[in-house]
Amino acid sequence: MKHFLQNFLLYSIGIFNEFFLEYSTASITYFLPNSTFPLFTSWMAMSKSSYMRNFAFTAINNLFYMLRIKAFMLLNVILLESALETVPDEILDHPSVKNNAKRRRKEPKSTILDVSIHYHAMRNLKEKEKRGRPDIIHSAMVLLLTDPVVKVNLYIHTINSLLIKVNSDIRPPKNYERFIGLMEQLFEYGKVPPESDTPLIEITKCTLDDLLSKYKMVLLTEKGERKTPDYLCNLGEEWIIGLGGFPHGDFNEQIYKKASERISISDHVLETQGVICRIMGSCNQLVGWP
Amino acid sequence: MKHFLQNFLLYSIGIFNEFFLEYSTASITYFLPNSTFPLFTSWMAMSKSSYMRNFAFTAINNLFYMLRIKAFMLLNVILLESALETVPDEILDHPSVKNNAKRRRKEPKSTILDVSIHYHAMRNLKEKEKRGRPDIIHSAMVLLLTDPVVKVNLYIHTINSLLIKVNSDIRPPKNYERFIGLMEQLFEYGKVPPESDTPLIEITKCTLDDLLSKYKMVLLTEKGERKTPDYLCNLGEEWIIGLGGFPHGDFNEQIYKKASERISISDHVLETQGVICRIMGSCNQLVGWP
Repeated sequence: MKHFLQNFLLYSIGIFNEFFLEYSTASITYFLPNSTFPLFTSWMAMSKSSYMRNFAFTAINNLFYMLRIKAFMLLNVILLESALETVPDEILDHPSVKNNAKRRRKEPKSTILDVSIHYHAMRNLKEKEKRGRPDIIHSAMVLLLTDPVVKVNLYIHTINSLLIKVNSDIRPPKNYERFIGLMEQLFEYGKVPPESDTPLIEITKCTLDDLLSKYKMVLLTEKGERKTPDYLCNLGEEWIIGLGGFPHGDFNEQIYKKASERISISDHVLETQGVICRIMGSCNQLVGWP
Repeated sequence: MKHFLQNFLLYSIGIFNEFFLEYSTASITYFLPNSTFPLFTSWMAMSKSSYMRNFAFTAINNLFYMLRIKAFMLLNVILLESALETVPDEILDHPSVKNNAKRRRKEPKSTILDVSIHYHAMRNLKEKEKRGRPDIIHSAMVLLLTDPVVKVNLYIHTINSLLIKVNSDIRPPKNYERFIGLMEQLFEYGKVPPESDTPLIEITKCTLDDLLSKYKMVLLTEKGERKTPDYLCNLGEEWIIGLGGFPHGDFNEQIYKKASERISISDHVLETQGVICRIMGSCNQLVGWP
């Protein structure tokens, strides 16, 4: 019954807001100084229940609309067991690896493993169905880091347990070849650009456990409890959203255990870009599609 | 006042639905045969007003939920003035064009123009800021054609006024190099696969005008009337959604004139993948994030 009453309240607020926005905004402009802005965001962060958060978002969104302030949202995201690595030692001598390295004017061990190039070489590789798909990380980065409203604090955990931190100021290259070049540089020098003190991408010295001592992780998995994606937008800054960065198969059991919560956002099996689109769409909808 | 009353009604239905779903679904399973399904979709298509459509969607979504039928949605989309073409005659002799063609073992005139390869060659090209970005078409195709709920009937209109029809059964290659290979094949043989009677992608003999005698076009442009993206999901099958398939600049004046409606779905300037994510997210939200 509590849920029903909460919804009743939310819908009533909704009716009021619709009415208010429809008939009142024309005459209201900037009657509050911008300095009240942090006040409201901290109120939002303080609200622990999802109901209060929803209420806060709606209120702030309408306030923003009235004041013509552009709304924003911040998410913490980690791509887990990402299929991103340099060519492993076992297959360095394979002709497809050597030819590709020669064409790129690199040492074979400095090139990125890619199943579309190294298909035959990868035949006997351990867990091969989860490896060699840098394109997944590329499209995820482009989708997560180009939204003007939803800003993402992004980490990439690789299949080899490296933890990569991506600066949210990065403009990820849209071109795949350029992205591969960037990743080759990252694995060779540990950061991009190699000489920078505030790099755009960096291989950290932390482990996944170190990161998860700072955040609680909500893992997106088909086996999780069914929720709608707006649940993820409302979680708050102590949470990090864990998405699979691999094409097929399932999370390692260790990853399952590390998660504080396991949820599923669809009845369908979604690909990584589909999951990200739903999260970004849902968060944008919550702040009124600014 | 009409809008206010409509919203009041919708919210009331929302409260009822929430209550109904919360307390009743456990005991309801498959009490209607699947054959009632087309009945409801045609009811939905018949409803001309956006209010009735919204109502229909909510009702059908809840019915689907009760019956455990998976909801779906169909959109017509056209990418306009897409930055997808083979290298034009003017720059066929440029070293970067020749080298790339040699590497791909193709004739220079059969390779795809790509600014990340042909940057210097394109320096004097007409409308160069709108050309040579096949990556935009690639990421748009992947996002539009991999959603399990929203099915897209996709056309690609190129900067050279070719009209390409994409079969909705296609599984677009995730790898950029493979996509480029596919496009080279398309421009060489007019269809992919070259021998097929029911090709996955085909250069049609139609013009944009021919297509727009069949559909009414809603053009997404910064200069359009501000709407939320769900507006596009509710339009119905006689409409086609026109998106820019180029990186910078504006639509050709001719394209503006051909549109029946011009709308904007954000206060921000969005990139093509951002626009598509919002549309897909919004349509999925309308059918209850299945």
